[in-house]
Amino acid sequence: MNKQADNNPSAAVLVIGDEILSGRTPDANINTIARFLAERGIDLKEARIVPDEEDEIVAALNALKEKYDYVFTTGGIGPTHDDITADAVAKAFGVPIDHHPEALRILRAYFRELGREETDARLRMARIPEGAALIANPVSKAPGFAIGNVFVLAGVPQVMRAMLHELAPMLKGGRPAKSVSIEALIPEGDLGVPLGDIAARHPGVSIGSYPFYEKAPDGSDRFGAHIVLRGRDEKALRDAEREVRALIERLQRRGSAPPATWE
Amino acid sequence: MNKQADNNPSAAVLVIGDEILSGRTPDANINTIARFLAERGIDLKEARIVPDEEDEIVAALNALKEKYDYVFTTGGIGPTHDDITADAVAKAFGVPIDHHPEALRILRAYFRELGREETDARLRMARIPEGAALIANPVSKAPGFAIGNVFVLAGVPQVMRAMLHELAPMLKGGRPAKSVSIEALIPEGDLGVPLGDIAARHPGVSIGSYPFYEKAPDGSDRFGAHIVLRGRDEKALRDAEREVRALIERLQRRGSAPPATWE
Repeated sequence: MNKQADNNPSAAVLVIGDEILSGRTPDANINTIARFLAERGIDLKEARIVPDEEDEIVAALNALKEKYDYVFTTGGIGPTHDDITADAVAKAFGVPIDHHPEALRILRAYFRELGREETDARLRMARIPEGAALIANPVSKAPGFAIGNVFVLAGVPQVMRAMLHELAPMLKGGRPAKSVSIEALIPEGDLGVPLGDIAARHPGVSIGSYPFYEKAPDGSDRFGAHIVLRGRDEKALRDAEREVRALIERLQRRGSAPPATWE
Repeated sequence: MNKQADNNPSAAVLVIGDEILSGRTPDANINTIARFLAERGIDLKEARIVPDEEDEIVAALNALKEKYDYVFTTGGIGPTHDDITADAVAKAFGVPIDHHPEALRILRAYFRELGREETDARLRMARIPEGAALIANPVSKAPGFAIGNVFVLAGVPQVMRAMLHELAPMLKGGRPAKSVSIEALIPEGDLGVPLGDIAARHPGVSIGSYPFYEKAPDGSDRFGAHIVLRGRDEKALRDAEREVRALIERLQRRGSAPPATWE
């Protein structure tokens, strides 16, 4: 449904990792990929985190690769027994998996350089589903890969970021949305109704309201909302922005005490 | 499938928010909920992030509430037009939604206290699906709610955390897994095969390997892996731990230069 829902390509992220679900490690990759895609006019429509279990990975991959133009997976492509992503991807695509000659060459050269033993575990990282294209890993060499509309990336954030950079030329981007963020020192509850009216009058502009609470430099409390407008049509965006700024001004003139909470 | 897959209850998190998918805001709630559940012996099996679109929220809710014992949603319960979670939850459960008398009472008392106007937007926060139980919000009053096996929480992290604390007595916990994390200054590629053998011999213990790279206090590079063992059976965990420690010692004795990379 999201495929072709507008002119921009759509995407999903699939994070594979027990360590994220157990709470041991906070995910650091979804936000990086979200910003990378936003810059390129690719709409991230969904993200999922699943455990290191083949059935779960295959089911999520099948759902996401069908629904979205691109799927980016992170995690589970290292040398240990819990790294099962490549096998799950092969299974989802119904293709065999074996040691990839170019991946073997890259890894063997690297192991020689480091004086590392060629363990079966290390060579596991050269196992790539048939028909996949390698994604270079300038950090630690073991490559990611692309197959169909799925990009399989490392979980270690430094490596993941380097791989994103490498695969960028493989993506067809869209028109990046422009966005404006306006800080309103007004409680969301006062903004709600008139802001909804503005949103209804500008269907091409997405308007979000995000309450905040912070300590000001002088130690006092600051409450309010960030109103974020996003859209691809510059003129529509500016029109909506003008209305939101006028609304905020009107509400602030109306006075009342500065907001003391964020509802 | 995960329902009753072992004796611990299972759970999923559903984050609702365009601002997370656009990359504007990194999610801060999944990790908090993951740790909260882990402490209580509830296994977090999946997390999803979906946009502020009713169809997407309803579809994800239906999939997750069917599959897991508990579902925790965050986001989309504020006073603005983009806050559509309560309506989506009502739709997923096929029940009507209206202003909840107790929620209205709480909000009105709070607005009076603050000298706030009773806007329709503010009163929107009292709209609760029929049959739901309120979850108190000690921070900013507008309540979350529980319906069936779904807990609907705020997106603002401070409020979300307070609501988790409030709803804790409503959950049936399980046996929390115990875990041990062992730092190995050994590249993962050397650990891979023997570690996989240990994992295969201890099916009741989940063994994960997480490579790290960091600067030591003296400025030198430190590479290796954290081996994390998790399990509910203390004796099985200790047996596996002993084998992992022996393996690490053996590999470190075998010498070789300290690891220079993490593959």
